[in-house]
Amino acid sequence: MPAATVPAKAGRTTHVDAVRLAATALIGVAIWLVPEPEGVQPRAWQLLAIFVATIVGIVLRPLPMGAVALIAVAVAVLTETLSIAEATAGFGNTVVWLVVAAFFIATAFVKTGLGTRIAYHFMRLLGRRSLGLAYGLVATDLVLAPAIPSNTARAGGVIYPILRSLCVSLDSTVEQGTERRIAAFLTFTVYQGVVVTSAMFLTAMAANPLVVELAAQQGVEISWGLWAAAASVPGLLSLLSVPLLIYRLYPPQIRDTPAAPELARRRLAELGAMTRHERILLAVFVLLLSLWIAGTALGISATTTALAGVAAMLVTGVLAWEDILRERSGWDTLIWFAVLVMLASQLGELGLLAWFTERVSGVLAVGHWIPAFLSLSLIYFYVHYFFASNTAHVSVMYAPFLALAIAVGTPALLAALLLGFFSNLYASLTHYGTAAAPILFGSGNVDIGAWWKLGLLVSVVNLAIWVGAGSLWWRLLGLW
Amino acid sequence: MPAATVPAKAGRTTHVDAVRLAATALIGVAIWLVPEPEGVQPRAWQLLAIFVATIVGIVLRPLPMGAVALIAVAVAVLTETLSIAEATAGFGNTVVWLVVAAFFIATAFVKTGLGTRIAYHFMRLLGRRSLGLAYGLVATDLVLAPAIPSNTARAGGVIYPILRSLCVSLDSTVEQGTERRIAAFLTFTVYQGVVVTSAMFLTAMAANPLVVELAAQQGVEISWGLWAAAASVPGLLSLLSVPLLIYRLYPPQIRDTPAAPELARRRLAELGAMTRHERILLAVFVLLLSLWIAGTALGISATTTALAGVAAMLVTGVLAWEDILRERSGWDTLIWFAVLVMLASQLGELGLLAWFTERVSGVLAVGHWIPAFLSLSLIYFYVHYFFASNTAHVSVMYAPFLALAIAVGTPALLAALLLGFFSNLYASLTHYGTAAAPILFGSGNVDIGAWWKLGLLVSVVNLAIWVGAGSLWWRLLGLW
Repeated sequence: MPAATVPAKAGRTTHVDAVRLAATALIGVAIWLVPEPEGVQPRAWQLLAIFVATIVGIVLRPLPMGAVALIAVAVAVLTETLSIAEATAGFGNTVVWLVVAAFFIATAFVKTGLGTRIAYHFMRLLGRRSLGLAYGLVATDLVLAPAIPSNTARAGGVIYPILRSLCVSLDSTVEQGTERRIAAFLTFTVYQGVVVTSAMFLTAMAANPLVVELAAQQGVEISWGLWAAAASVPGLLSLLSVPLLIYRLYPPQIRDTPAAPELARRRLAELGAMTRHERILLAVFVLLLSLWIAGTALGISATTTALAGVAAMLVTGVLAWEDILRERSGWDTLIWFAVLVMLASQLGELGLLAWFTERVSGVLAVGHWIPAFLSLSLIYFYVHYFFASNTAHVSVMYAPFLALAIAVGTPALLAALLLGFFSNLYASLTHYGTAAAPILFGSGNVDIGAWWKLGLLVSVVNLAIWVGAGSLWWRLLGLW
Repeated sequence: MPAATVPAKAGRTTHVDAVRLAATALIGVAIWLVPEPEGVQPRAWQLLAIFVATIVGIVLRPLPMGAVALIAVAVAVLTETLSIAEATAGFGNTVVWLVVAAFFIATAFVKTGLGTRIAYHFMRLLGRRSLGLAYGLVATDLVLAPAIPSNTARAGGVIYPILRSLCVSLDSTVEQGTERRIAAFLTFTVYQGVVVTSAMFLTAMAANPLVVELAAQQGVEISWGLWAAAASVPGLLSLLSVPLLIYRLYPPQIRDTPAAPELARRRLAELGAMTRHERILLAVFVLLLSLWIAGTALGISATTTALAGVAAMLVTGVLAWEDILRERSGWDTLIWFAVLVMLASQLGELGLLAWFTERVSGVLAVGHWIPAFLSLSLIYFYVHYFFASNTAHVSVMYAPFLALAIAVGTPALLAALLLGFFSNLYASLTHYGTAAAPILFGSGNVDIGAWWKLGLLVSVVNLAIWVGAGSLWWRLLGLW
């Protein structure tokens, strides 16, 4: 898997990279030309070729992910691998619209400034000491996570600007060579915080709904509330221990930061009282959370809730229709997400997943399911060194690994959830592991050696918490 | 129908108009509260209330059309009138993606400047005299129409800027009080040209695919090639005679315009040779047209062709992914179009359309179908005085009028096509009849009295051509 060369180019490219494009196409053509193995329909094999080329395209990025996805659709229908109705059906998927609607809601946090206000509140409350400051930034992230499904938007859009101005006022910048005073510690902690908060809510990271959809295609239903409940205990444990671990192993040079709450107080004074739009957004947000949590009991789907939230903000004028039309990440996600969901579901319907699982699970199914599932999970986790995107990793590996885990006897819900959480936590490892990473790494505050060493350590701690404490908690919840 | 007050506000509003919003909601609530008539399911009646409120919202515009549509979806799912899966299914409709893809293709004409170049070529060839100049502008519009499904983009984006600079160089401007020299004639002719070219191709106006989808829901299949073939003869007759009619009844003061081909030649020299992107676009465009025309014979759907066109432009770099993400009209259309298709199809599935048709057709079905269908068509046409959007009119009236026409014995394909063509031609009447109208009217070149009087005359000529020559041509084609 040649993805390790990607990070330098991980940003959004606007021109076409002909070499990468040719490589992507070549891989697709090569698979296409291999005769399909026995037991696989020709059409399924063709679709596999297109699917693999799509994932390679997402990893190599000859073009942005959405463009790769759209081209994949065109190829699939032109080659009559899929009918046009099959190909466009993904755009009508309800989970797709959950994440698109959540992107529109996220816009409101940035537009109204409510996200910034929340950050300064936490800074005022917890910011007297370095460690408290880190917890304050992580807490902001946690509060925003349920309604902002892009860790890039949270880390890059809301928290990083505050982090930067904070570090300047604490005299800790790369330009002065003083990043280790506090900037390095805060930057790395914020990143590892984002990795954990992304795992905690279905709507906290764009690929989580993809996990849910892929699990549903194998008969495992995960509601918004179930995801949040299952992730709550290990998530909070991680959010408490990871900053502390970083504080010990990668300590800031200053421990006391009286200037921080002072800055926060000043900025809050500048912001003044909450605007009408902020108050409405806050009310909508509380309502959203309540309905997402109580959704299953009330029979209201998470997508219904999200669409109602968007409608409420349109009616009250918190969001203008133009804001939504300009929310490019939402439209971008609509395209790539719908196409991946559609490709994965068609692969399932054409029997390819069942065929693969049948072949491989025989090899694994010796002895108890626990060692088999643990090995599968660890492979799933550490293979992320080769991925520059949670989504690409989930798209290609989640469904087969879940199928294998179930085939070796793992309780289905447990397998689906743990692999889902890992689909976020594995991003701790590298400075390109998820879209937020290049932004924070790009600050220059953390050098690459520290990032990788500490990232590995954090991954071990997270694994211990989510597998150890997590499995106990899920047993208590009756999930297995 | 209170839409006659709309035009002043026909532009895109960005704030919420509370009074209009309350009026829209009230109409929905009022219908909701009326007990459903015998033979109608409660759920169908609730959906009717939401549908009518949506159309009223599209006409009154308390918010932009897309926002109204999204709010309608939220209301439908929150009230459990529709399931969330039913509500989002429209976004996966293939016809929706035909028009969305066409919007992306249209972007390329503006971005590369090919649209402008084509206009100057026609101006150089035909522009020596006023009437020729008008034909040149109409010809540009005709060439662009198959690939630009927004008459606003054609008239406002490509042709109007050229028209304006042309009129300035011919000393005919409102500011100087010289608009009747030639600006008035050209502006009005371009508008009436757009009305006709919109009727000529399935992909020439955003509501045409809606027509096709609504017809398909009643079992009438209209391909891209069939639409174009049926519209070709009456369309060309209209394009030849309408400018001549305007030239006689609303003549420009100057007849010779030697400056125009001169200007065109200068501009073409400035543009230089065609760029690589323009040449690729031209090739893609020719391929698109061929595949759209031959689509039925080859078994390639119009949506497949359009998506392949977009993919080709992404691969060649003619369009960057960012261009597509920024193409707000495409996303806007996706939302309102998908929602209208979904609402209409659900109304059909819940049996409301059949119930309505059964009630009303009994009254009409006396004597031969020809007078009954002609009356229906004329009502359908002239009711457009009360609409400020082709789409709203189509959404609310096309399906029931088609059902009635078929019920009284009209050949189904004839009825579907004629009502479809009328869904464009009726825009000739007013200065707010379709989205392109306010732009051209807003130039101030044509006064309102002339617009309405001439508009009515043009409508009669178009009716004579499309009903008279049209029905003969369709007979020849074997369509009835």
